[in-house]
Amino acid sequence: MMRIRARNLGMKFGTLPTGRKNAITDIPGVMVGHSTLIKDPDKSGSISRMVRTGVSIIFPHKDITSNPVYAGVHTINGNGEVTGVHWIDESGLLTSPIGLTNTHSVGTVRDSIISFFRGASDNSGTFMLPVVGETYDGFLNDINGQHIRTEHVYQAIESASSNEVREGNIGGGTGMIAYEFKAGIGTSSRKIDLYGKEYTVGVLVQANYGKRHHLNVNGIQLGELMPVSKIPGKFNEDDGKLQDSKSGSIIVVIGTDVPLLPDQCKRLAKRAAFGLGRIGSIGENSSGDFSIAFSTGNIINTDTVSPFSVTTILPDDMSHLFNAVTEAVPEAVINSMCAAETMTGNAGRTIYKMPVDIVSDLFRNNQ
Amino acid sequence: MMRIRARNLGMKFGTLPTGRKNAITDIPGVMVGHSTLIKDPDKSGSISRMVRTGVSIIFPHKDITSNPVYAGVHTINGNGEVTGVHWIDESGLLTSPIGLTNTHSVGTVRDSIISFFRGASDNSGTFMLPVVGETYDGFLNDINGQHIRTEHVYQAIESASSNEVREGNIGGGTGMIAYEFKAGIGTSSRKIDLYGKEYTVGVLVQANYGKRHHLNVNGIQLGELMPVSKIPGKFNEDDGKLQDSKSGSIIVVIGTDVPLLPDQCKRLAKRAAFGLGRIGSIGENSSGDFSIAFSTGNIINTDTVSPFSVTTILPDDMSHLFNAVTEAVPEAVINSMCAAETMTGNAGRTIYKMPVDIVSDLFRNNQ
Amino acid sequence: MMRIRARNLGMKFGTLPTGRKNAITDIPGVMVGHSTLIKDPDKSGSISRMVRTGVSIIFPHKDITSNPVYAGVHTINGNGEVTGVHWIDESGLLTSPIGLTNTHSVGTVRDSIISFFRGASDNSGTFMLPVVGETYDGFLNDINGQHIRTEHVYQAIESASSNEVREGNIGGGTGMIAYEFKAGIGTSSRKIDLYGKEYTVGVLVQANYGKRHHLNVNGIQLGELMPVSKIPGKFNEDDGKLQDSKSGSIIVVIGTDVPLLPDQCKRLAKRAAFGLGRIGSIGENSSGDFSIAFSTGNIINTDTVSPFSVTTILPDDMSHLFNAVTEAVPEAVINSMCAAETMTGNAGRTIYKMPVDIVSDLFRNNQ
Amino acid sequence: MMRIRARNLGMKFGTLPTGRKNAITDIPGVMVGHSTLIKDPDKSGSISRMVRTGVSIIFPHKDITSNPVYAGVHTINGNGEVTGVHWIDESGLLTSPIGLTNTHSVGTVRDSIISFFRGASDNSGTFMLPVVGETYDGFLNDINGQHIRTEHVYQAIESASSNEVREGNIGGGTGMIAYEFKAGIGTSSRKIDLYGKEYTVGVLVQANYGKRHHLNVNGIQLGELMPVSKIPGKFNEDDGKLQDSKSGSIIVVIGTDVPLLPDQCKRLAKRAAFGLGRIGSIGENSSGDFSIAFSTGNIINTDTVSPFSVTTILPDDMSHLFNAVTEAVPEAVINSMCAAETMTGNAGRTIYKMPVDIVSDLFRNNQ
Repeated sequence: MMRIRARNLGMKFGTLPTGRKNAITDIPGVMVGHSTLIKDPDKSGSISRMVRTGVSIIFPHKDITSNPVYAGVHTINGNGEVTGVHWIDESGLLTSPIGLTNTHSVGTVRDSIISFFRGASDNSGTFMLPVVGETYDGFLNDINGQHIRTEHVYQAIESASSNEVREGNIGGGTGMIAYEFKAGIGTSSRKIDLYGKEYTVGVLVQANYGKRHHLNVNGIQLGELMPVSKIPGKFNEDDGKLQDSKSGSIIVVIGTDVPLLPDQCKRLAKRAAFGLGRIGSIGENSSGDFSIAFSTGNIINTDTVSPFSVTTILPDDMSHLFNAVTEAVPEAVINSMCAAETMTGNAGRTIYKMPVDIVSDLFRNNQ
Repeated sequence: MMRIRARNLGMKFGTLPTGRKNAITDIPGVMVGHSTLIKDPDKSGSISRMVRTGVSIIFPHKDITSNPVYAGVHTINGNGEVTGVHWIDESGLLTSPIGLTNTHSVGTVRDSIISFFRGASDNSGTFMLPVVGETYDGFLNDINGQHIRTEHVYQAIESASSNEVREGNIGGGTGMIAYEFKAGIGTSSRKIDLYGKEYTVGVLVQANYGKRHHLNVNGIQLGELMPVSKIPGKFNEDDGKLQDSKSGSIIVVIGTDVPLLPDQCKRLAKRAAFGLGRIGSIGENSSGDFSIAFSTGNIINTDTVSPFSVTTILPDDMSHLFNAVTEAVPEAVINSMCAAETMTGNAGRTIYKMPVDIVSDLFRNNQ
Repeated sequence: MMRIRARNLGMKFGTLPTGRKNAITDIPGVMVGHSTLIKDPDKSGSISRMVRTGVSIIFPHKDITSNPVYAGVHTINGNGEVTGVHWIDESGLLTSPIGLTNTHSVGTVRDSIISFFRGASDNSGTFMLPVVGETYDGFLNDINGQHIRTEHVYQAIESASSNEVREGNIGGGTGMIAYEFKAGIGTSSRKIDLYGKEYTVGVLVQANYGKRHHLNVNGIQLGELMPVSKIPGKFNEDDGKLQDSKSGSIIVVIGTDVPLLPDQCKRLAKRAAFGLGRIGSIGENSSGDFSIAFSTGNIINTDTVSPFSVTTILPDDMSHLFNAVTEAVPEAVINSMCAAETMTGNAGRTIYKMPVDIVSDLFRNNQ
Repeated sequence: MMRIRARNLGMKFGTLPTGRKNAITDIPGVMVGHSTLIKDPDKSGSISRMVRTGVSIIFPHKDITSNPVYAGVHTINGNGEVTGVHWIDESGLLTSPIGLTNTHSVGTVRDSIISFFRGASDNSGTFMLPVVGETYDGFLNDINGQHIRTEHVYQAIESASSNEVREGNIGGGTGMIAYEFKAGIGTSSRKIDLYGKEYTVGVLVQANYGKRHHLNVNGIQLGELMPVSKIPGKFNEDDGKLQDSKSGSIIVVIGTDVPLLPDQCKRLAKRAAFGLGRIGSIGENSSGDFSIAFSTGNIINTDTVSPFSVTTILPDDMSHLFNAVTEAVPEAVINSMCAAETMTGNAGRTIYKMPVDIVSDLFRNNQ
């Protein structure tokens, strides 16, 4: 069966060509892995303990823990956690893969990344400050059960590959919700020609934000055309009121093989807000919206002798990358919603998938 | 003649009601003043010395220099100047009116605001750190002539009122260009009901950014439908290439009477990026994009006895304001383009106004 | 036996009076708890698996998880981890107690604070973003064994009290080292009279930074007078070279009952650098130096109706608090070194306590 | 007559060797220029209109406006103005010389730097965002007279050289005051051996901050030993009370020829706080304390073809530079006080120079 993605529905996300996979793994060397936990309690359990969560891991390149790359982080709205950013802010170096999971298991994922790479027998005196972001899946997942274990983190790490990236209810995105439709992991990429060479900008999101009525693609008010009165969201549940004010968040991971310095990565990260603005986001208070951008164009050998050379581009050339990010971010979000399937989870709650047939019709009629 | 503004053309900018004037002066106490310089050189002069520039001044309230308000600043893309932000970042206090002018006269406007309020005879030992932002009008204005003088700044200050705000080719916006159409000053406002009371969020922009093909309102690709091949922009001029890479910028001033603390003002300022994203902005490298948000809900008496009380709201209530900002920012930009008139300026260059008839038709056909 | 603290040795740390306990718990309501893990492996174990670590917890007040206070964070040098700061930066609210532990157990402490306060049966949809900082104790502790468990975190939380604060080899400070002497937890406080009332500024540090030769108090070059050639540090061990470049860090927690807004807390946090400068710190690359300041002068009731009042002071009054912080920070560091005892730990390594007799003599001779 | 500088008095500022001139101009290519305005009013004038001010200009290298260098800025306490920092924060590039002047003439200096380098006949479409910092000289200078004119700025620019740097009552430092003694411009440098090569770190300050009783060098409480009761400061004047709360500030300019990236320059800038802490600074509320660090190790050719190479060093090597900054900053401040002479200025006020004989005796007795 053909996989349906946002551009199959007639949506447009700018004019740049996508990479072959239209995924962050179009960037040479980038790898993504997932571990998905879907468990129902045994008979003696209550329906309020259903597990719908997971871990996703993004490697800028295979040896990131020994050979860091430059990166930059931007906080769009800081109602959330991303560990490991202080050292990125200070040194510009990303020294670990990037983990994505649920809000209440960030710590386990962080410490488990350390144990995977350091090991109990490591006595070298080196330490790690892993980067792990989160969004809140407590509507569908028994988040307070803290079901993620070290083995799940290892599994996500070990499964990392540069293949096509699975989207929707997978890895850290398993229990996530965007615009009150089922969402999760989504990805997209763009090709840009610079200096006679083809480079790639790729995006991967863990999407879990937004009120239905804000959903808007290419000027079509999807949220108003498919309101929660017709396709329920999480906010018209009996206990939805509480969720309404406390859910949300998106983590945007941006990569490129254009050689950038740390400051330039940070500039790239900031463009995520423009991309989210294109599909109706307002960065609600309860939404922990972060973007992390890295460049694989410089891979730092920490055993090198200083001073050493790195590669960069002139500021004006950044606009090409800004354009690519602004196109790819909204596409990645909508891709996450196209791939996600309706899910029933914790406390018997159900979140519906975005009806792609209806959306496809809306776009066809609008051409 | 009726003034044409963006919403008269069939454009939609969200669902919240506007204030009566649909202007930043809908906020009680806010005042705006302008001084406009349009001068052609005398016969002996060359055409390359035409003056098309000015100064605009925004007062959060009349006595801002003695009774500051809380404010916050956000740098969307820092290719520009806004003076006076260090003290806002440090203390949260806005202690001066906000000036807007061209890039090469920021200093004169800054020092002139000081002399207006301090005066040569003031020996009190107090100092000022005025807030002045800029965008670059060197395509139409003889910017290196630095024509703004102290008297023009005084004139803008003295003309400040809470009346309707003139838009387009006025004040600091006189020589400005957005999406390669003539632009300048634009404004908009939203009413929000909170806690049984009606509050206002207002926006004023000095708009001077963007490439034509990025212009996009409500999903209608205005830029592609009115390309520079049909309606010339500044980039297909003989010397347009240089301008292409070096122009741009927008200053977004946001005000509200909702009582906010400094951090909350900063959060408001950050939402400008979402609003700009809705009309195609990507925050190009050459664009100095800044937003400043202030709240008149607390007016600080610096002669008070500490500790003293100020008023704030819970974080979750911020989302109402975020929504208002995200709606009003793009409307203010388009308003600046609706009001601006075609202008011929320095070196005989011409920038055309956005053809409102064509735009109106495009929107009518699209309903 | 009388407890020896820095000022008993003749050292001077400014002119303000200390609180009764000369501890962060002099601030009404502040509570500190510790859990200390000192375990040697069983006979079959190797000497390289000795456990010398722990957890410390600081509560601004008992009900911090339901009634947050304003806070601000400053990164002096970001080579470390402090979780939970994004929400402080965004909202100004500290919504959890502050945990301190070793670098590789930050995640466990973070997630365990969540489980303590939320509990597996909590299905309320609320989430937590706990604040947990770290320093690296891998010289004396089997850090890669990740020995901290949820039960140790609970124990630290449950032991929290407003009593005198134990210093040195306790809690998160158990295995820490400063200026190559044994260090750990230290605390100090200052009383300031403002507005006819007595307020307190308190500091607690987890000190783990600095090269011996930099140690300098009141102009006496302690580090040069007690060099590692006479009293070994960790850098003249056989494998000390590696440690040299990779160790270090200090977390500075600052509290006050002066009513401050978030921005004002952040300003307070920034003064830690001045205090550290007084005793020779240079903020080495490998040192993760963070400061967190909170005010108990406003306790936010999140069930309140907005808008609501909070209390603040004029900017100029901040200097009194800056003075107090700059005095108390170096005293807290030296207190941690006075209280700490010589420790032998992982891989049989030994770190010596600062010889208080010698120090006392040096200061007596210098009067 | 031999020039007396801080280390001639027996003071110690660490262990690294200084450069030949012990000045920022020890860095190859760095140039400093000054313009000093000392004017008394004509007979008809009142004593309240005495002019004691000026402009200093620091060039990282001669062609900085066409070939920028990497730089970073840190705000220690933001009660002041430094223009041009937004573009440094965004791009990491310093594209102008750095100007220093009084608080109310920053704008004139900024706009005059533009006119010097752009010229009225420049129609190239390029713009400038000059970097100009300030401290407040209104105690001795008729600051509200805004006496700095474009010609004075040109004069400072044109006088720039790599010679020894004049200190004290010169250029921007003319009317400045530190620890209630006469101060102004001061400088210092350090040599560091890295990678088999000799590099330089240089510092120049415009010092204008601090209360007398805080002055403390090498543990000797100079401020308490030379109190304002014996050597008057500005705070025991009849109108001193006002000055007390409103004066202060220091601008610290740091340069090096070690090749650094923008983030690394910013890290260097942050170390100024440690250096100021060593001589008693607490960063008072009224003090606008900023540091700007640049590296001449990469000179960017903006006409280059991207991508291009730049040079950097590993993070751990930064500690050598941190050490140098922390040593040189306090020395530069004290140098400014050694060189400054007693000055009578506006309103007949007098500020005394620090009595170097007394200081010298205090240090000799303390050895």
